[in-house]
Amino acid sequence: MKQINIALLGFGTVGSGTARILLEQKALLEKRAGCPIHLKWICDRDLTTDRGFSVPEGILTDDLERVMNDQEVHIFIELIGGLEPARTFVLDAIRRGKHVVTANKALLAVHGEEIFRTAHENGVEVGFEASVAGGIPVIKAVREGLVANNISTVLGILNGTANYILTRMTREGIPFERVLAQAQEKGYAEADPTYDIEGVDTAHKLAIMSTLAFGSQIGLDDIYTEGISRISPLDIAFAREFGYHIKLLAIGRKREKGLDLRIHPTMIPDSHLLAQVSGAYNACYIVGDSVGKIMLYGMGAGQMPTGSAVVADVVDIARNITLGATGRVPSLGIAFDRLREPRLMPMEDLTGCYYFRFSVKDQPGVLARIAGVLGDFNISINSCVQKGRDSQDGPVPIVMLTHEAAESDVRKALKEIDSMEIVLSPTMIIRIEELDTL
Amino acid sequence: MKQINIALLGFGTVGSGTARILLEQKALLEKRAGCPIHLKWICDRDLTTDRGFSVPEGILTDDLERVMNDQEVHIFIELIGGLEPARTFVLDAIRRGKHVVTANKALLAVHGEEIFRTAHENGVEVGFEASVAGGIPVIKAVREGLVANNISTVLGILNGTANYILTRMTREGIPFERVLAQAQEKGYAEADPTYDIEGVDTAHKLAIMSTLAFGSQIGLDDIYTEGISRISPLDIAFAREFGYHIKLLAIGRKREKGLDLRIHPTMIPDSHLLAQVSGAYNACYIVGDSVGKIMLYGMGAGQMPTGSAVVADVVDIARNITLGATGRVPSLGIAFDRLREPRLMPMEDLTGCYYFRFSVKDQPGVLARIAGVLGDFNISINSCVQKGRDSQDGPVPIVMLTHEAAESDVRKALKEIDSMEIVLSPTMIIRIEELDTL
Repeated sequence: MKQINIALLGFGTVGSGTARILLEQKALLEKRAGCPIHLKWICDRDLTTDRGFSVPEGILTDDLERVMNDQEVHIFIELIGGLEPARTFVLDAIRRGKHVVTANKALLAVHGEEIFRTAHENGVEVGFEASVAGGIPVIKAVREGLVANNISTVLGILNGTANYILTRMTREGIPFERVLAQAQEKGYAEADPTYDIEGVDTAHKLAIMSTLAFGSQIGLDDIYTEGISRISPLDIAFAREFGYHIKLLAIGRKREKGLDLRIHPTMIPDSHLLAQVSGAYNACYIVGDSVGKIMLYGMGAGQMPTGSAVVADVVDIARNITLGATGRVPSLGIAFDRLREPRLMPMEDLTGCYYFRFSVKDQPGVLARIAGVLGDFNISINSCVQKGRDSQDGPVPIVMLTHEAAESDVRKALKEIDSMEIVLSPTMIIRIEELDTL
Repeated sequence: MKQINIALLGFGTVGSGTARILLEQKALLEKRAGCPIHLKWICDRDLTTDRGFSVPEGILTDDLERVMNDQEVHIFIELIGGLEPARTFVLDAIRRGKHVVTANKALLAVHGEEIFRTAHENGVEVGFEASVAGGIPVIKAVREGLVANNISTVLGILNGTANYILTRMTREGIPFERVLAQAQEKGYAEADPTYDIEGVDTAHKLAIMSTLAFGSQIGLDDIYTEGISRISPLDIAFAREFGYHIKLLAIGRKREKGLDLRIHPTMIPDSHLLAQVSGAYNACYIVGDSVGKIMLYGMGAGQMPTGSAVVADVVDIARNITLGATGRVPSLGIAFDRLREPRLMPMEDLTGCYYFRFSVKDQPGVLARIAGVLGDFNISINSCVQKGRDSQDGPVPIVMLTHEAAESDVRKALKEIDSMEIVLSPTMIIRIEELDTL
């Protein structure tokens, strides 16, 4: 049986996990794939760091030129991360007629169109199961398992770091900055955590998932993105009081007005299964017209879970090479040239319920003035809580939950409210997501 | 592009859902599969019942002979259910070189070895995603998505009827018989509910899942099976008091002593995600050495969810026919002739914690005598609750939770205890399953 040769670019965290599986599970993979899968090259600039397992002689190299030129390689695995040089290497491999497997969500969210078009033109496959939700086979589920469905909703907790921070804030009542600092110390959060906490990483993943689910090439610009850095323990405590958890959600919905795509801190009912997804775990909730509601749950990151997804793609492609069935399932679920231009719903057209936390001066008439402005913009109040101030002259928090309101009205009302001299800092908004009970 | 012709045998609930998807989503399926998928025949004895959607002229027939002999058919979908004549039709189709898709878990659990061997000999595929957990792609996840993993655990809530009954008993405190009767009235439970409530249906599904996960052909006889009909509202209330939910679990674990395969009512901690799976929903929890813990959740039955899974298999097989890649993924994850004989752990070798509810006479010294016997068999008590009796002369319940004990000791101790004259009815045992927090 034909041997499939693999070149791995990038021997960092996920690269190490992937290499370990390919080396240590070689016999298992051969038994399942029906052909030997041979890790021929691991290419990295760092040839010396101990990755905790032994790599056979002659595999590890820093000679990228030699690896890229090796005619015997069938599949390149890109685990370098970031946009460049990853993009150049991936496009180079594709143009040489090689299949590519990547875990690089940033690369696909930003350069996906170029990469998938080039792959389509060169008749090669691009596997990217590992780019969303680590080892959970969400891409395969949407593309193959739910092939009979028109998908209306893809929604999820897709960033483990943000979820870990919110979980600890919820359980321990400590501020964002302190949890973040501790997470960085322990290596759970990156030195520069911007992508994780500002929702950018989650947006990368939603771009990929919604491209697949809705059959339109979605880019980062199509997604409204807001992070969690402004969430305070006060917001979490108020949310709990009202029966909600705060989660950083990726939300993709097909609506009459177009695709509704957004990332923001979201209040979801305690009773919903997604509210129970804690720590570094991820969950992806999908609604299809036949299957109904399903949820896939597991570790969204980590070297072995992500390696598991990378190797699953490698095996899939290896089977296709062996049988001459390349392109059996198009990378994006349908042929690249059948993707539609996305029709987007402007964020201003969103309607829903909102949580507002106003920080106001402790003086008579404040509540009335705020409520008056909200009324002017057709925003009707569902519940309202005013608590004592923290310190003598500090701001007093007033919290309101609204009935269904329009995002455009909310924006106008808050602009007016935030310019009042009685309002001491910008109002905190958290959107409440309507979710059917699971 | 080559057209793939389908013959559907059985136009009942799932058959109707499947036909609807194949007819109404024809364009979508062609776009995704890359080839037209044509429902050529629906074969059923009942030609008159209105299934709620229109079937094009000439498709519906009761002429089985003609359908089976149609050389143009590529894939037979068996949705008749039960063992015979389903087995005969499936084997007949396979021997004619036709691929088969089925949702029939009983058939596969009982005649799986014969069916998969015959399919292997005839070089055809057998798709059975719909046989476990309805539309949730659990088979594809285990067989393809987790291909890089040694799976150690497959565990799940796999019967919607049993879970619905337990959920209502838990929420409303009403007895088993009453919930069952109401469920039957509403059509949620079958007229003969034995398979659902006695764990047989769950055992069918575990046989399939554990064959896939552990690479050994598992039959019904390999699985210890106990149903939920003896669970009382009292047990549920006590469980809640101790922080547990009672669920009918399918448990498959690879242990040092062999495969541990069982179906029984199980106490799981309230905090575990599986405890939150309510009503007719199913969930499947899988542990792999690379991926860690994952859980897949959704509707485990119903005509459209199950139809979604049937059609996913049809598309998979259609792609393989079109590309000449039949057998690309072996039906059981590895080639049929590479399956191992299962090495089973005897149920007596199980160890774990137990819940006992003794029904005893209300007289002095009873507790001491029971505790004495347990002590004789090395069963140590973790907590004990004795509540007042229900009626004047009725039995008094004593409930105990044990520390880790051996199943063999438990059986011996209970045999002795249940033969005491102070014990008024057989002791209720519920096993407590150790689950890592998700």
